[in-house]
Amino acid sequence: MTSLLPGDFPRRVVMREVSPRDGLQIWPTPVATADKIRLIEAAARTGLRRIEIGSFVSPNAVPQMADSDDVADRVARFADVAFEVLVLNTRGAERAIRASVDAACIVLAASDTFNRRNSGRSVEESLREFREIYDLLRGSTTRTLATIGTAFGCPYEGDVSEDRLFEIIDSLVSIGEREIFLADTTGMAHPLAIERVTRAVLARWPEVRFGLHLHNTRGLGLANMLAGLQSGIDRFDASLGGIGGCPFAPQAAGNICTEDAVHLLHEMGIETGIDLDRLIEAARLAQSVLGRELNGQVMKAGPRKTVRAI
Amino acid sequence: MTSLLPGDFPRRVVMREVSPRDGLQIWPTPVATADKIRLIEAAARTGLRRIEIGSFVSPNAVPQMADSDDVADRVARFADVAFEVLVLNTRGAERAIRASVDAACIVLAASDTFNRRNSGRSVEESLREFREIYDLLRGSTTRTLATIGTAFGCPYEGDVSEDRLFEIIDSLVSIGEREIFLADTTGMAHPLAIERVTRAVLARWPEVRFGLHLHNTRGLGLANMLAGLQSGIDRFDASLGGIGGCPFAPQAAGNICTEDAVHLLHEMGIETGIDLDRLIEAARLAQSVLGRELNGQVMKAGPRKTVRAI
Repeated sequence: MTSLLPGDFPRRVVMREVSPRDGLQIWPTPVATADKIRLIEAAARTGLRRIEIGSFVSPNAVPQMADSDDVADRVARFADVAFEVLVLNTRGAERAIRASVDAACIVLAASDTFNRRNSGRSVEESLREFREIYDLLRGSTTRTLATIGTAFGCPYEGDVSEDRLFEIIDSLVSIGEREIFLADTTGMAHPLAIERVTRAVLARWPEVRFGLHLHNTRGLGLANMLAGLQSGIDRFDASLGGIGGCPFAPQAAGNICTEDAVHLLHEMGIETGIDLDRLIEAARLAQSVLGRELNGQVMKAGPRKTVRAI
Repeated sequence: MTSLLPGDFPRRVVMREVSPRDGLQIWPTPVATADKIRLIEAAARTGLRRIEIGSFVSPNAVPQMADSDDVADRVARFADVAFEVLVLNTRGAERAIRASVDAACIVLAASDTFNRRNSGRSVEESLREFREIYDLLRGSTTRTLATIGTAFGCPYEGDVSEDRLFEIIDSLVSIGEREIFLADTTGMAHPLAIERVTRAVLARWPEVRFGLHLHNTRGLGLANMLAGLQSGIDRFDASLGGIGGCPFAPQAAGNICTEDAVHLLHEMGIETGIDLDRLIEAARLAQSVLGRELNGQVMKAGPRKTVRAI
């Protein structure tokens, strides 16, 4: 089944684990620092190469991430695993440098309304702040990436125009960013939109590596991932067990589920470097730490290769 | 967004609602006949054009379907909605004729082991029985369709060869069948397999209308549906709220969810003739009748068009 990938499918994909950050940031009950560290270390032993371990933002705005400096300080480091954090401003960037994390992911939204509600700034103000962040980080060992939220629609503004999205990408490229994730923050993307936008950006900015950050809010997470793969997207954010969620749809699903996504990739003959069995174990650990049945399906059904005795 | 469908995408898709049959057949607690009828009638008012209302099989084998004759007898009939039933043998076909249902869906599995466990017969024995069923139904107003289970893998035998699958399709075509659903009974398909098989069968039997019956057991239901759409498949089984399930993975998801699938289709500009808001209402009715949170996502998050007041 391997080597029969048609079209533009990548042969190898990098999964970026975001459960410690996006998965937990709105988790309804407190999660102990020690448990976060256990989860991150379990994830780091699966073959995952990038983990977003927390968020260096205001503890008042996101109480669940108040211990991110502590997590970064106490978690074991692994030679092949990059630990990344989310930052919104220069204060966060300074914390990232202090914590010696491998990367800082700056985040803004393509829609002004969403950006104001998420960071208290207009998109233009965020971009100005990011310029200072990049100046700060340039002298450090912490590299950058950027995520553009609401890239496929905004829960307040509705459709987001591709012109606006491309303008923001231009601004990020002009201040030096070379890795950009397009985020479907509230699950408003569909496969044709994903394909149209990803093909357009890959063609227009060949010097930039583009990834997708997808939510399964309306059940389309992996269908949208498939559409991204077909365009040649080779990096995706995902969350163990599919944890996380959308503050706008509290009962709905969260990020796409890492182990379900990896199972899909492996079945299609796409390499990830990840041990699926260990990944399922890590998802089960998340389930037991969080004390709630998670959305992941492969952790319940087992991988396809599971053949039953008669 | 409409009319921009690339490739072989169908412009219009028929959804075949299977919640009253596949959705309920292994439901763990009894569901009252009156509740089944309420669900079927609610589904029939959404614009759905085909509903599998029950199973004319042995009540000992499938107790939850013991009242299917009664359901067929008491449910209101709708001018534009075909009521269909599952049958495995001539006894079932006789009940279908007596009940004046619009179609009888015969079912066999592509793997011999699964077929024996599902119907107590080898595949060849099922095919011989089907010949008699077709003779019986030819003189009636009940038309036929066929479903081939484990078409993308068997939980006992593992991979199912395409040669074997195509041989079974040949047999069904030779006894007169012109509508065949390929079923991913236990969620073992992945998008590349779906695309390869559906393209092959559509090319080889242009006189046959092919559909897909997909399960979300490993989270790939809608990604597999997308792959089928890309090949030109224009009919899919699905289940309100995603109810149903796989006896081999009790905690895992069931059939693909009708309202999530319809939401996907509409977002992509594919017509279904279904009113999504009513469909969501029908899914909520299913949730309240069954007394359990269902897997459907759009019923929780609302359709994409839901834009929030600030």
